Amino acid sequence: MSGLPRPQLRIGLFGAGRVASQLGPALVAAGHHVVFVWSRTAPTAESLAAQLPGTTVLTTLAAPLPAADVYLLAVPDAAVAPLLSSISWPAGALVAHLAGALPLSIFEHQPTVRGGVLYPLQTFSPGRAIDWPTVPLCIEANDLTAETTLLDLARSLSQHVRRLDSAQRLKLHVAAVFANNFTNHLLGIAEALLAEANLPPALLAPLVRETVDKALANPPFSVQTGPAARQDAPTLAAHQAALAAHPAWQALYGQLTASIQAQL
Amino acid sequence: MSGLPRPQLRIGLFGAGRVASQLGPALVAAGHHVVFVWSRTAPTAESLAAQLPGTTVLTTLAAPLPAADVYLLAVPDAAVAPLLSSISWPAGALVAHLAGALPLSIFEHQPTVRGGVLYPLQTFSPGRAIDWPTVPLCIEANDLTAETTLLDLARSLSQHVRRLDSAQRLKLHVAAVFANNFTNHLLGIAEALLAEANLPPALLAPLVRETVDKALANPPFSVQTGPAARQDAPTLAAHQAALAAHPAWQALYGQLTASIQAQL
Repeated sequence: MSGLPRPQLRIGLFGAGRVASQLGPALVAAGHHVVFVWSRTAPTAESLAAQLPGTTVLTTLAAPLPAADVYLLAVPDAAVAPLLSSISWPAGALVAHLAGALPLSIFEHQPTVRGGVLYPLQTFSPGRAIDWPTVPLCIEANDLTAETTLLDLARSLSQHVRRLDSAQRLKLHVAAVFANNFTNHLLGIAEALLAEANLPPALLAPLVRETVDKALANPPFSVQTGPAARQDAPTLAAHQAALAAHPAWQALYGQLTASIQAQL
Repeated sequence: MSGLPRPQLRIGLFGAGRVASQLGPALVAAGHHVVFVWSRTAPTAESLAAQLPGTTVLTTLAAPLPAADVYLLAVPDAAVAPLLSSISWPAGALVAHLAGALPLSIFEHQPTVRGGVLYPLQTFSPGRAIDWPTVPLCIEANDLTAETTLLDLARSLSQHVRRLDSAQRLKLHVAAVFANNFTNHLLGIAEALLAEANLPPALLAPLVRETVDKALANPPFSVQTGPAARQDAPTLAAHQAALAAHPAWQALYGQLTASIQAQL
């Protein structure tokens, strides 16, 4: 495609929350036109639309939709199916959701729609800018033209685009929960334990950095260390005793220890 | 102390494993003299001593020890007490262990020894060089002169030295297990799930990096995301189904979900 102008797409953006508020400006930066923004809560749609050139706020789902090449459903997972069924989609509209755990088959009740998925494998938080070129974007579609358009769209945002079927995407989403949500929770427990010992959270930063550097450079199971991996019963017992004030974390410590030892 | 020469200490190093093999060269680089290395397995002691200038291998624990300002016990936790009791320590010898989970009271059966602790809060692995100036070193001693010497020694290695009592150190060690050992295990599960979906482990790297960056910049409990935190029952059920081939990880998923929800 080098030498040719990048295809500019007209995007209809549903959602104005954590994902959509970062996706909108990224789409504009990539040369696309966000035709409209819709949100269940009008003020957030207005706030996002005001940041984007030539973008209107869609105020009703009852009227015919403004024309767009791609309609993106950047709404909470639970809102995707209700939104799909509450709109009279233009015949042949390309509609894509962004959810890791929703299968492509969610589109089967909209036979006139070309359904697709554009799943960004990243965690989105208010106030933390996303580095889009590094975000893996996972594409699936039930139609070859839809797939081509979504691949083009994804490649205009990121250097890491790949096709994934629904089963792969679900597995990846589960893996992301372990690598992101659960890891964050463990770091929260660690910080809480430090606070109880009157120690600052920053104390753990070099250890956490090295843990992740090592786990990304080696198969993590192959570099597992610690009292669980070395079957160090006295240390495990001392740790259980140190967690006496936190029965739930004590139990979790035991369950994670058993899970590590099951891998040895 | 600026302008004065850094005090050079004579170190007797017990251990030649993951920690000692990185500590020995760091001590030399900081201007100290590693007088001898001892290891339960003589070849590893010989290999380490050969890398250090003027360092001999201690071949017996039965003869009087060569003189040193500090004897460091960089051996497995379980080996510290047996080693302490099997040596005729010079009267007033300063002996320090490096274990997070062992209390200072482990020295109480050696009344002629000045006991101490120099606990490096980092994970050590073969082939991964430690950046010593960034490693938090936690000091405790049962004698003021011992504490001063250990603080000087620690500050010659690291910019992050602090005094910790045994209860704080144990709590910190438990926190480190959550932040390091358990986190590594979760990353291992994530990688295994990716492999089952024929996906490369590198796919998760941007997510893991952002997870850690965010958790180190904010209280992790305050930035918790994911299906557990948003009480997303359909996604939780889909993930449980996707883990059907791994009953143990399925159980762990449920336990971590419950632990996240208990913090909401």
